[in-house]
Amino acid sequence: MSKQDITQQLIQTIDELSDLNALQGIFHEHRDGDPLPSAVELEEIIMLSRSILFPGFFGRSSVNCETIKYQIGVNIERLQKLLYRQIMAGLCFDTDCHCPHAENTRRCLNVEAEKIVVRVIAKFPKLRTILSTDIQAAFDGDPAAANIGEVISCYPALKAVINYRLAHELALENVPLIPRMITEMAHSETGIDIHPAATIGSHFTIDHGTGVVIGATCIIGNHVKLYQGVTLGAKSFPLDKDGKPIKGIARHPILKDYVVVYANATILGRITIGKGCVIGANVWVTRDMRPQSKKYKQSKTDILDTDFEYGDGI
Amino acid sequence: MSKQDITQQLIQTIDELSDLNALQGIFHEHRDGDPLPSAVELEEIIMLSRSILFPGFFGRSSVNCETIKYQIGVNIERLQKLLYRQIMAGLCFDTDCHCPHAENTRRCLNVEAEKIVVRVIAKFPKLRTILSTDIQAAFDGDPAAANIGEVISCYPALKAVINYRLAHELALENVPLIPRMITEMAHSETGIDIHPAATIGSHFTIDHGTGVVIGATCIIGNHVKLYQGVTLGAKSFPLDKDGKPIKGIARHPILKDYVVVYANATILGRITIGKGCVIGANVWVTRDMRPQSKKYKQSKTDILDTDFEYGDGI
Amino acid sequence: MSKQDITQQLIQTIDELSDLNALQGIFHEHRDGDPLPSAVELEEIIMLSRSILFPGFFGRSSVNCETIKYQIGVNIERLQKLLYRQIMAGLCFDTDCHCPHAENTRRCLNVEAEKIVVRVIAKFPKLRTILSTDIQAAFDGDPAAANIGEVISCYPALKAVINYRLAHELALENVPLIPRMITEMAHSETGIDIHPAATIGSHFTIDHGTGVVIGATCIIGNHVKLYQGVTLGAKSFPLDKDGKPIKGIARHPILKDYVVVYANATILGRITIGKGCVIGANVWVTRDMRPQSKKYKQSKTDILDTDFEYGDGI
Amino acid sequence: MSKQDITQQLIQTIDELSDLNALQGIFHEHRDGDPLPSAVELEEIIMLSRSILFPGFFGRSSVNCETIKYQIGVNIERLQKLLYRQIMAGLCFDTDCHCPHAENTRRCLNVEAEKIVVRVIAKFPKLRTILSTDIQAAFDGDPAAANIGEVISCYPALKAVINYRLAHELALENVPLIPRMITEMAHSETGIDIHPAATIGSHFTIDHGTGVVIGATCIIGNHVKLYQGVTLGAKSFPLDKDGKPIKGIARHPILKDYVVVYANATILGRITIGKGCVIGANVWVTRDMRPQSKKYKQSKTDILDTDFEYGDGI
Amino acid sequence: MSKQDITQQLIQTIDELSDLNALQGIFHEHRDGDPLPSAVELEEIIMLSRSILFPGFFGRSSVNCETIKYQIGVNIERLQKLLYRQIMAGLCFDTDCHCPHAENTRRCLNVEAEKIVVRVIAKFPKLRTILSTDIQAAFDGDPAAANIGEVISCYPALKAVINYRLAHELALENVPLIPRMITEMAHSETGIDIHPAATIGSHFTIDHGTGVVIGATCIIGNHVKLYQGVTLGAKSFPLDKDGKPIKGIARHPILKDYVVVYANATILGRITIGKGCVIGANVWVTRDMRPQSKKYKQSKTDILDTDFEYGDGI
Amino acid sequence: MSKQDITQQLIQTIDELSDLNALQGIFHEHRDGDPLPSAVELEEIIMLSRSILFPGFFGRSSVNCETIKYQIGVNIERLQKLLYRQIMAGLCFDTDCHCPHAENTRRCLNVEAEKIVVRVIAKFPKLRTILSTDIQAAFDGDPAAANIGEVISCYPALKAVINYRLAHELALENVPLIPRMITEMAHSETGIDIHPAATIGSHFTIDHGTGVVIGATCIIGNHVKLYQGVTLGAKSFPLDKDGKPIKGIARHPILKDYVVVYANATILGRITIGKGCVIGANVWVTRDMRPQSKKYKQSKTDILDTDFEYGDGI
Repeated sequence: MSKQDITQQLIQTIDELSDLNALQGIFHEHRDGDPLPSAVELEEIIMLSRSILFPGFFGRSSVNCETIKYQIGVNIERLQKLLYRQIMAGLCFDTDCHCPHAENTRRCLNVEAEKIVVRVIAKFPKLRTILSTDIQAAFDGDPAAANIGEVISCYPALKAVINYRLAHELALENVPLIPRMITEMAHSETGIDIHPAATIGSHFTIDHGTGVVIGATCIIGNHVKLYQGVTLGAKSFPLDKDGKPIKGIARHPILKDYVVVYANATILGRITIGKGCVIGANVWVTRDMRPQSKKYKQSKTDILDTDFEYGDGI
Repeated sequence: MSKQDITQQLIQTIDELSDLNALQGIFHEHRDGDPLPSAVELEEIIMLSRSILFPGFFGRSSVNCETIKYQIGVNIERLQKLLYRQIMAGLCFDTDCHCPHAENTRRCLNVEAEKIVVRVIAKFPKLRTILSTDIQAAFDGDPAAANIGEVISCYPALKAVINYRLAHELALENVPLIPRMITEMAHSETGIDIHPAATIGSHFTIDHGTGVVIGATCIIGNHVKLYQGVTLGAKSFPLDKDGKPIKGIARHPILKDYVVVYANATILGRITIGKGCVIGANVWVTRDMRPQSKKYKQSKTDILDTDFEYGDGI
Repeated sequence: MSKQDITQQLIQTIDELSDLNALQGIFHEHRDGDPLPSAVELEEIIMLSRSILFPGFFGRSSVNCETIKYQIGVNIERLQKLLYRQIMAGLCFDTDCHCPHAENTRRCLNVEAEKIVVRVIAKFPKLRTILSTDIQAAFDGDPAAANIGEVISCYPALKAVINYRLAHELALENVPLIPRMITEMAHSETGIDIHPAATIGSHFTIDHGTGVVIGATCIIGNHVKLYQGVTLGAKSFPLDKDGKPIKGIARHPILKDYVVVYANATILGRITIGKGCVIGANVWVTRDMRPQSKKYKQSKTDILDTDFEYGDGI
Repeated sequence: MSKQDITQQLIQTIDELSDLNALQGIFHEHRDGDPLPSAVELEEIIMLSRSILFPGFFGRSSVNCETIKYQIGVNIERLQKLLYRQIMAGLCFDTDCHCPHAENTRRCLNVEAEKIVVRVIAKFPKLRTILSTDIQAAFDGDPAAANIGEVISCYPALKAVINYRLAHELALENVPLIPRMITEMAHSETGIDIHPAATIGSHFTIDHGTGVVIGATCIIGNHVKLYQGVTLGAKSFPLDKDGKPIKGIARHPILKDYVVVYANATILGRITIGKGCVIGANVWVTRDMRPQSKKYKQSKTDILDTDFEYGDGI
Repeated sequence: MSKQDITQQLIQTIDELSDLNALQGIFHEHRDGDPLPSAVELEEIIMLSRSILFPGFFGRSSVNCETIKYQIGVNIERLQKLLYRQIMAGLCFDTDCHCPHAENTRRCLNVEAEKIVVRVIAKFPKLRTILSTDIQAAFDGDPAAANIGEVISCYPALKAVINYRLAHELALENVPLIPRMITEMAHSETGIDIHPAATIGSHFTIDHGTGVVIGATCIIGNHVKLYQGVTLGAKSFPLDKDGKPIKGIARHPILKDYVVVYANATILGRITIGKGCVIGANVWVTRDMRPQSKKYKQSKTDILDTDFEYGDGI
Repeated sequence: MSKQDITQQLIQTIDELSDLNALQGIFHEHRDGDPLPSAVELEEIIMLSRSILFPGFFGRSSVNCETIKYQIGVNIERLQKLLYRQIMAGLCFDTDCHCPHAENTRRCLNVEAEKIVVRVIAKFPKLRTILSTDIQAAFDGDPAAANIGEVISCYPALKAVINYRLAHELALENVPLIPRMITEMAHSETGIDIHPAATIGSHFTIDHGTGVVIGATCIIGNHVKLYQGVTLGAKSFPLDKDGKPIKGIARHPILKDYVVVYANATILGRITIGKGCVIGANVWVTRDMRPQSKKYKQSKTDILDTDFEYGDGI
C-alpha cells in the first residue's frame, strides 16, 4: 500500500464522513455565536457550586472567617457567567436556530437565561440547608464515619446528591439537556444515576451507591436511605399509536418518609412504599407496601402479577 | 529520626525497588523509540472518534454544513497519527524487542500498523451507520428521552458502545492490549464492561448501564436491550493439565434478536436465549430458553443444574 | 429585571452564603500555612506509587534496566514530599488548630508526619511483593487474560487494590481522612469500594468489580476471589444511648482462604465463611458457613433469621 | 502583629483599593457579555496567522500537500472566531457602553466586526505574497542564512513584520487598541517596535532588530533594510492650547526605496531620505537626504539645527 | 556505537555531573520544606499586582463597580500567600540553613516574612496613586496615544515601572534576590532594565524603552522622561584590596525634575543633571549639567576627562 | 453581507491559501513520522540543560546532596530523548525526504543523530566548568551583585551564554537550524543575539546585555567584557557573480583576551582588537587596535576609511 494509496483512502473516508446526507439527524449544527453545551464548563460549574456550598472542603484555596465573603463573591460571579452560557446552550439546543425569526428568538432566550440564572443562584442558601440534612443523616447512619468532615470530603453519595439538587432546580426552570448532563457527570463519577426530574426530600442518604438508579417520576420523602445497587424504576410504560413510549406519565415509585431499601433491591412501577417500610437486599417489589411493613424475601404476588410487563428503568 | 537516617532509609528503599530481580516479570522494558501504550493518547483517540462520528455533539468547536469537511479532515489526520502510534505500541508490547532480529521485526510491525490504521479508519462510515441504529433504539425505548440529541449527548451506554465498536475493529485486526484499554476506559467512565472480542448486532441498547458485564465470546443479535447490572458471563471454564484456564473457548451466552434482560439478571455459560425472550430482574439463567419465552422467577432447574460450576464472568 | 436588580439579588445571596451562622459545622477553616487535603496531589501520589511499583506500565516515560534507578529515585523523592503534605493535611484536619498550643501541636504533627512518610515508603517493596500475587491470581483465573502485562495495564481491580493497599498502610498509621480519600478515588475510577481499614490477604482478585463493597472490619484470607456486585457488609449495628451508631465494633464478615463469591451476592454481619467455600450469584448469606461448603440458592434460615436487622453496609 | 491585626490591615487595604473614587479614570468597567481584549486570544491569533501563512514552519502539526486544505480550513475558522471576538473587544473598548442606546450600539458593532473579520481574512493571500518578498530580501542580504527555511523559522524580524502587517490591516479598518496590542506583542518577543499605523513597502528587512523603533506616520518604500537599534522617530510635535500634543500630524521620516540604515542610527522628523541613501551606524539625521547620498559621520547641520527640539519617538 | 556503549557513556556523564566537588559554589542546596524562589509564582505575583492596581485592564475576568471588592479581596488573599512564600524563599536564600540554630532562624524568618507581606500590601494604594501619575505623563507626552486605556493596556514602560515600583518596596524591606528577579522579568518582557534599588519620582515615563538601563544608586526626580536605549550607568567603581569592587557606593547619576533624555544617550557616574535639562540622542555625559541646560552634541570635556575609567553600568 | 456570502468568501480564501503554487518555496512539507523542529521541545531542552548544569537554581524541584544523582539521571535521560528528536528534525530539515533513497537516508540520519546526542551530552561537565568562569567574572565585575547565587538566578547574560554554549556544540556537530533556534530563544528572552558559530573563550561577561549582537565568525578571547548594545558585526561582505553574498567568509572582529567594550559601541569587520584594549561607549571601530590601547572618541580614520562599505551585522 503506497503513500498515495493511503492518502487516497483517507480522503475518500473524509468525503464519506462529511456527506451531509449521512449526517441527517445525528449532526448538530450550531448558529454562529451560540454557546455550546460544554462538559468542561459544566465541570467548573459543579466545582464552583460545591465550593460555594461547602467552603474549605471543595475548591483549591484555603478560606478563613474574615475573608470568606470575597471567595464566595468571586465564585458566585464566575458561576453566574458560566451558568448563563450553559443555560443559553441548553435553550438553543432545543430551538430551531435557522428559522426567519432566529434573531428575535435568540434575544428572548437571552433574557430568559439571565432570569433563570439569578433565580437558581438565589436558591443556593436553601440548597445548602437541605444538603446539610443529607450530610447529618449520612453521619448519623454510618459507624465508619469519623466526623462530619469525612462525610463532606469523601462520600460519593453527597457528590451525586449535590449534582442532583442543582440539576433539579434547572429542571424546574425547564432548561433542556443541561440538567441531565449534570446528573450524568455524577453518574460517571459515583455510579449513582438520579434523574434530575425526580423529587427527593431532606435527610436523604445513599450508602456506597454504585448502581443506584432513581427514575424521573420518583417521589421520595424525608429521611429515606438507599444502599448500593437499588433501582427505583418503571414496571411498564404505555405506547402511543406508533408504538413509541408516551412521554411524561408517572411510572416510578413513591417512597414515603423513613423508608430504607437495602443493596440491589428493585422497586418497579407507580406504587407507594409506606412510611417506615424496610425492603431487604436483592428482593424486588411491584406492589404497594403498607406503612411500617418489611419485606426481606421475594413474595409470590410481586412475581406473579398478572398485568406484569417490565418497562423502562427510569 | 535524624535527616541522615531518613535519607539513608529512602536510599535503601530505592535500591530495593530498583533491584532487577525483584522486578522479574512485572517490569516492562521498552526498546528505545518504540511508542508506549498511553492512556492520554487513547483518550484523545476516543474524543476524536466521537467528534468525527457525531460532529457538533462531541469535540470542542462548533461546526456548520459548509466547513464540516475541514474539521473532519483535520480530525482524521490526527486520528491516523495517534492510532498508528498506539497500534505500534500494542504490537511492540507483544513482541520480544531484544532478539537479534528486532530491527527487522520492527520494520514489519511498522508496515502492518500503517495498514491496520487505514483499514480501521475506512470503517468509520459503517461504524456511524450502526451506532445510529443504537441511538434510535435508545430513543424509541425510553419515555424520559426528550430527543435524539439528548441521547447522543448524555447517555452513558452510547459512550460505552462507541468505545466497544471501535475496540472491536482493532480486536478483529489482532491488535494486542489496545482494544482492552479502550473498553476499560469506557468501563471506568460508565460502569459498563464490554469485552472488545464480543460480537454485538445493531439497535443495541443498555439502560443506565452501571454494572453491566458482557464476556469475550458473547454473541448478541439485533434489537437487544439490557438494563443496569446485567451479567452475560461464563458458567465454568475447562482447565489445562497445569490447572490453568484454557484460552479461547466459547463460554458466554448467545442472545438472539429482540431479547430483553432486566436489571441485575445474570446469564451464564454458552447457552442460547431465543429470539424475543424476556428475562426479569435479579434472576439468573444457566440453560437455553426457547424463542419468545419469559422468565421472571428463579427456576429450580437453573439452580439445581448438576454439572453446575461457576466460572469466570468474562 | 434590570441590571441593578440582578446585582442586588446576587449580592444578597452572597451575604446569605457568607453568613458564618449558616456555615456552622459545615465550613472547614484552615490555619494559615497548613497544607490542605488535595485531590490533585492525591492523584499524583497514586500515579507515582503505581509507576514506582510497576515501572514501565504506569507513568509517562519509558524505562530501561540501566537507568531505572534514577526514575525510581526521583519518584520516591517526589512521593515523599507529596505524602508528607497530605499526611500533615490529614493530621491537621482532625486537630483543633485554634487552641493556645496550636504552634506546639503543629510542630509535633510535623515530626510525626515525617516519620510516617518514611515508614510507609519503606513498605513499598513489600507492597510490590503482595500485589504481584494479586496479579498472578488474576491471570491464572481468567481465560480472557492474554498475559501478565494485560492484567497490570487494564484490570480495574488491580488499580483498586493498589489504592487500598497503600491506603491501608496509612490507616495503620492512624492518618485521618487521607486513606478514605484514596480508596474513594479508586471507587470512582473502578466502581470498587474497599474500606481502607479492611484486612486483605495475598492472591486477592476481583473480576470486573463494579459495585463491589468491602466493609471496614472485614478480614479476608489468601486466594480469595470476588465477582462484580458482591457486598461484604454489616447486618446491624448497635446504637448508643443517643441513638447514634457505636463506632469501631466488628460488624463485617470474615472470609477464610480460597473463598469464591459470585456476582451480586451479599454477605452480611460478623459471620465466618470457612476455607474454600463457594457462594453463588445473587444469593445472600447472614450465617456462618462451614469450610468447603457451597451455597447457590437462598436458604430460609438466612432470610428468617429472628434477630435480623439490616445495618450499615460498611 | 497578631493574626487579627494582619487580617484587619488586609481588609482595610482591600477597602481602599476598591474605593471607586480612587479608581476614577484607571478602571475599565465592562458591559456584561462584551468580549475582553485578551493577550491569550491574541497570542493564539498570531500563532494561527503564522501557521496559515507559512504552513509547516509554524503551528504544531505536520502538513502534506494533499491534506493542507483541511488544516488551513480549520485554522481559518478558528481565526475568524477569535478575530471577531477581539475586534468586538476593541470596538467596545472605545464605546460608552452605559448610554441608553447601548443595546443598539452593540448590535451595530457586531455587524461591523463581522464584516471587518471577513475583509481582513480575505487579505491573507496578499499578506503572504508581500511577506515572501521580505523573506527573500532577508535571505539575499545575509551570508549567515543557510536557506529560506532558516529565515522563516528563526529570524525575529520576520515575526515582528508578520505581526505588523496583520496589525496594519486592522488599523486600516479603524479597529481601536487591538493593532497596538499585536505589535507590542512582537515588541516584547523581538525588541522591534513598529507602530501599526506606519506604511511599509515590500522586500523589507531588519537585521537582528533589537531596539528598532518605527513611528506611526513613517512611510517606508520597497527594498529598505534596517539594522538593530535604528530609530525612525519624531523630532518635535506641536502642542495644542492646553499644552497637549496634537494627535495625527505627520511627524516621522519618509524612507524611499533601497534605503539602508545601519545599527543605532537615529532619523528624526518629517524628512525624506532619498532613494538608495545609506546612513551609517550611530549617526543621526534631522534633514532631508538627496537620493543615493551617504552619511557615515555626524554632520554639523543636523546637530546645530536652530529650530531643533526633540519630540516623541513615535 | 552500541546501545551498551551509549548507556555507559551517559551513566559516566551523570556521575561526573553529580560529583559534589564539581558543584562547589554553584549548587544551591535547600533545606527541606523551605520555599524556593520560583519564576512561576513571581509571574503570578506580577499578574495579581497588575490586576489589583488596574482592575479591568489586567487579569482574566471582567469586573463591575458593584462586585469589584470581591475580586480585589480574593486577589489580595492570593497575593499575600504567594508573596509570603517568595519573601521566605528570598530570606532563606541568604541564610545558612545548616547551622545548628537553623530551626530557630527559620522561625524568625517566618515572622519577619509575614510582617513584610502586610507592610508591602498596605502600600498598594500608594503604588496605584504614583503609577497613575506615570500613566498620565505617558499619555500627555505621546501624540500616538489614543486614550489612557491604550497606555495602560499596551505601553511596555508601564509594565516595567509597575514591576520596579513593587520590587523597590521589597528592596526597601531588605528582601534578598526576589526584587531583582522581579525587575529582570520586566527586563525580559520589555527590554527595560531598572535596578530595584534605584529611586524614581512621580510622572516618570520611558518611551519605547528597549535597551534602557537604570543603575542601583540612581536618584530620579519627578516628571522625568527617557527614550529607548538610554543608559544611566556607573563611570568607574573603586576596588578593595583584593581587587574586587566595593559594594554599596553611590556611583550612578542624579536626574532632577523635568529632565528629558533622548534615545541611546549615555549618562555615567555620580553626576547631577539639573532640573529641566535636555540630553540629545546618542551623546554621552560624564559631568554635571546646570539646570535648564541642553546637550545635543558630544563635548570634549566629557570625553577627555582625565580620571576617566568606565565602570559597571549598574 | 449575508451568512452565505461570508462563508463563500472564507471558502474562497481557504482555496487561495491552499493553492500549492502560491506555496512554492515557503511551505515546508514533512515526511510522515519525521520529528518537527519544535519551540516547545527546545524550551524544555533549555530548561533541562540549565537545571542539569546548575541544580537548585533552575528546575522545578528542590535538590539535596544525597539525591542529586537521581535528578540529574532522570534529566539526562529526558534530555537525550528530546535532543535526539530535535537533532533529527534539524537533519531532516536539510534533506530531500522525497528522493528514492529517503528510507536509507533516514536510517543514516538516525544513527548520526544518536551519536551526536551522546557526544554533546558528554560535554556537559566541560560546559559547566567554563560557565562557572563566566559566572565568577560577572560577580567579580559588578558591585551590585550580592552573591554568586544572584548572578546565576537573575543575570540575563548568563542565560544567553548557556544557550550559546550549548548551541555552539551542536553547531560544531553541523546540526542545521536547531543551534540558531536555540540562540534566537535567548535573543527573545534577553535581547542578546549571539550567533551559534561564534567562538568565545572563558570568563566572558555581558552586562545588562539588551541589544548586543555577536556575529558568526567572531573570535573572542578569555576575560572579555561587553556592555549593552555592543555590536560585533561585518563591515562588508563580497558578493558572488549573481550578486548574492558569499557564505562562510570570515567577516567579524577578533577580540583578544581582557578586552572591554562599553555600551552601544560598534566594532565592524575582520579586524583584531588587541589584548587588554578598552573601547568607549557609542564609538565605532573599523580598524585594528594595538594591545592595551583605548578608544573613547570617534577617530577620523575609522570614519573616512576609503574601502568602507557596511555589510551585514552577523
